[in-house]
Amino acid sequence: MPLPTSSAPTDGARAPLLAGGAEGAAALRPLTGVVIDALQEGAVRRCGPLPGGGPRRVAADVAEVLRGGVIPEQGSGAREALGSLVRMLAEGAADPADPLCAAHLHCPPLAVAAAAELGASALNPSMDSWDQAPAASELEARTCRALARLVYDGGAGGDGGPGGEGAVRGRKAVPDALVTTGGTESNQLGVLLARERLGPDVRVVCGANAHHSVHRAAWLLGLPEPVRVPAPGGVLAPDPLRAALAGQGQGAPVLVVATAGTTDAGVIDPLGELADVAAEFGARLHVDAAYGGMLLFSRRLRGLLAGLERADSVTLDLHKLGWQPVAAGMFVVPDERDLSPLDHRADYLNADDDCDAGLPDLLGRSLRTTRRPDVLKVAVTLRALGRSGLAGLVERTCAVAHSLAELVAADRELELFARPELSTVLFRPVGADGAAVASVRRRLMADGSAVLGRADIGACAAGSGSGEQEDLWLKATLLNPYARRSDLESLLKLVRDALPDAGAASSAPAAADPSSLSPPPPRPALVDSITSTARRHRP
Amino acid sequence: MPLPTSSAPTDGARAPLLAGGAEGAAALRPLTGVVIDALQEGAVRRCGPLPGGGPRRVAADVAEVLRGGVIPEQGSGAREALGSLVRMLAEGAADPADPLCAAHLHCPPLAVAAAAELGASALNPSMDSWDQAPAASELEARTCRALARLVYDGGAGGDGGPGGEGAVRGRKAVPDALVTTGGTESNQLGVLLARERLGPDVRVVCGANAHHSVHRAAWLLGLPEPVRVPAPGGVLAPDPLRAALAGQGQGAPVLVVATAGTTDAGVIDPLGELADVAAEFGARLHVDAAYGGMLLFSRRLRGLLAGLERADSVTLDLHKLGWQPVAAGMFVVPDERDLSPLDHRADYLNADDDCDAGLPDLLGRSLRTTRRPDVLKVAVTLRALGRSGLAGLVERTCAVAHSLAELVAADRELELFARPELSTVLFRPVGADGAAVASVRRRLMADGSAVLGRADIGACAAGSGSGEQEDLWLKATLLNPYARRSDLESLLKLVRDALPDAGAASSAPAAADPSSLSPPPPRPALVDSITSTARRHRP
Repeated sequence: MPLPTSSAPTDGARAPLLAGGAEGAAALRPLTGVVIDALQEGAVRRCGPLPGGGPRRVAADVAEVLRGGVIPEQGSGAREALGSLVRMLAEGAADPADPLCAAHLHCPPLAVAAAAELGASALNPSMDSWDQAPAASELEARTCRALARLVYDGGAGGDGGPGGEGAVRGRKAVPDALVTTGGTESNQLGVLLARERLGPDVRVVCGANAHHSVHRAAWLLGLPEPVRVPAPGGVLAPDPLRAALAGQGQGAPVLVVATAGTTDAGVIDPLGELADVAAEFGARLHVDAAYGGMLLFSRRLRGLLAGLERADSVTLDLHKLGWQPVAAGMFVVPDERDLSPLDHRADYLNADDDCDAGLPDLLGRSLRTTRRPDVLKVAVTLRALGRSGLAGLVERTCAVAHSLAELVAADRELELFARPELSTVLFRPVGADGAAVASVRRRLMADGSAVLGRADIGACAAGSGSGEQEDLWLKATLLNPYARRSDLESLLKLVRDALPDAGAASSAPAAADPSSLSPPPPRPALVDSITSTARRHRP
Repeated sequence: MPLPTSSAPTDGARAPLLAGGAEGAAALRPLTGVVIDALQEGAVRRCGPLPGGGPRRVAADVAEVLRGGVIPEQGSGAREALGSLVRMLAEGAADPADPLCAAHLHCPPLAVAAAAELGASALNPSMDSWDQAPAASELEARTCRALARLVYDGGAGGDGGPGGEGAVRGRKAVPDALVTTGGTESNQLGVLLARERLGPDVRVVCGANAHHSVHRAAWLLGLPEPVRVPAPGGVLAPDPLRAALAGQGQGAPVLVVATAGTTDAGVIDPLGELADVAAEFGARLHVDAAYGGMLLFSRRLRGLLAGLERADSVTLDLHKLGWQPVAAGMFVVPDERDLSPLDHRADYLNADDDCDAGLPDLLGRSLRTTRRPDVLKVAVTLRALGRSGLAGLVERTCAVAHSLAELVAADRELELFARPELSTVLFRPVGADGAAVASVRRRLMADGSAVLGRADIGACAAGSGSGEQEDLWLKATLLNPYARRSDLESLLKLVRDALPDAGAASSAPAAADPSSLSPPPPRPALVDSITSTARRHRP
């Protein structure tokens, strides 16, 4: 193929256009318009927190859009492809911006953060070497240091620059952080640093309330299965931890993993007391603060995290109580030198002579190589909202949870598990057994009327190998700071009406029984089905 | 904080807005406009492939923008934050859309793919459970199957649906793929599946030309250091592999890792012959086709990958020769059942009764938990361009590389390493030693005039523990399909002029010697410095 000497792309308007360069803007502008229109259209057609009809129905709708094949021989063009697939995704989304979508630690992203992602994608810096990400790598370094100081220096904001008080090497530890894909990768890094520091015989000891990723990390890294300490109150208490560490022996290579904001109940382990116990046995301490860590922004609430600054490493997730699009995880350490086990060499990226000549060595800042600049949206959000703005969102979200708990407590048909510490509320219909609770959740989901989670508090309480008693609750993980009292009232009404014996409430065939997600639902014309879904869940 | 009963957000225009829901569009539209303006402004101010002045200068510019702190107490608002940080990132970017930015496997993303990312970020589906990503998870499943068939079924496009010929379980293998953060994670999965299949004594055997992530994966997973087979021709040849496997013993638990598109030279191992050798010794075979895998789209070029379909697992990266924003990695297996070692249970995400009721179990589709829908941009691109459109871009890009090689071969002052197989061209000034080559690269970088990579072919040739002889080349990794012949001519002129003894060519103090990236450069007003940079590199 002969190369032209002028004007690119050469085949005019029919050639796909690049996002970068000064010309990229002209290509991006109309296409982002198509995307935004499709998002809006899809949301209007969905008209609720998620599509009705369950997995089979959604699969059928996707199949219909893709009937020409995922990889057609000839393309349909950028506008058609963006319009049809983004609209399909929006119509078939569980949208956390809807207050009735409250199952998981799955936040509604801020518009400012989503818009920043466009900039990151168009520029496409890769964070593994300076010559792929000059400004982006510097922005990441400064943002990471600022967030790390929030954990370890009591929240002195500062500019994250090299000129700060902590910059004198050899005299004072400089807190630092790495950007990760989320809590799972951050927890894995916490376990990995313990392995590298303490050796391959290190044993992880965590509460039965710890996130499943702690167990998965141990498996991945070739370590024995973690010791699972019973957590009957939902938190890892000092005495059972002490007993577990005594079982390992004084001075044994142990990593204790505590949780600041459990996935099941949103509760915070007593971090200071656990740090005391870990210190007593010479164990390392990692705190998974993926959920609760963002309380650091709030001067009113950050006291709940007292002791966090004593951890050897900390997991944060700004895609939970930080309202970022996924991914925005952080792995935080009290001293940048703690990260040295991740140092890694590849001549094409960080040759010695390049580093000697002043090129920053970035390869040790992740286990990934090519890596997108997730830091941009985080930095933009921090700047746009400031600490006070984020604190306001965190406090407001916790207030939403307290309101829901009050409504549940005042409702004779519903049972409240406990007052929320963060933004998770566990509740269930009075007298409902596990099967009924699970059925209510699936029924709302099949209906398209609400997305609630589930928490088995029995499993959470139990230690290794114990025959746990199921104790299932509905879980509302509230991450929408703009939920209204009327939304919460609607949510509770939907739950009451969805009880299997509530009978009259449901007219939808797909929602008639707990197994309703399984059989292929009838496939009416798309507009009909959405109308009928909307009729049910919007009072 | 009392909750309002009506209209959210309640504090009017001053509250940060959400990206999702039907109202999200109104929030996103003006903000994406700010981002696109900032991208354009930054690109114009940069006026070249990367900012001049090297790391110290870029760091100083970033510090200036962040002088109010990374986390200010009060926010500056969405428009200011987006405008200033995106403009800063664009001005300080190494932009792969500039044909003179050709160091790494760092592609210029297509506008259609970057626009799709906006949709993904606004909706924020999380791919770890169906009730966070109803349509997105179905789109991912179909797209993964379609790409896997491209590897294992000779490229029958099909619709990726469950009704295809491969869907009859127990009789025929159904190729499948997982979405990953890139080649590094995919290679790690290849090694992990080998460990789970063959046990913790598995030994990885790879060429000296293999990507560094293979070694890092073995370390991460607690395996011994891989056996590094010399690859003096740049590729892993059958005979040395046979010798290495004989050293391990017939039937020993071994994973052979081959490469289809090396990072250093862009060459492809003889896959079919290596598959024969692996079979002879009963070893597993993983092929890292992160770079070369996209040749599958081209009927003209896919023959270069003959034998790929015999691998037990394959790494693909659509953020290389697929023009996606990072991340768009894939890990492909010939049979979906091969992925079962990744199965994982977490009651809140995939309880048995939920799965029995028809909820898809997604947790085994990644080692991550929360996970962004990177598949959307891939699916949109496949649909927009079609197989023929992507094939055209791949072929065009390879043609760019051949053109550069021809220009080098015809240039008496330059030496060509070899004709390119993919889109990597290694070359250097005649007679330049390693120090001179490294210096030219850094000089162009400090200048802001071009971004070239480096490849040490001596290290690539050597086996484990050998005292390798440095043999350094400039590396042009050409991923911009729209590069013109005149761009390539400019690139070569810049290289010739940047030779330390070319003297007259450089007037910039920061570019005067190989260590020029290190000392703090003078900081003229921003516009001045960019003007001077632009003067040098735009003929």
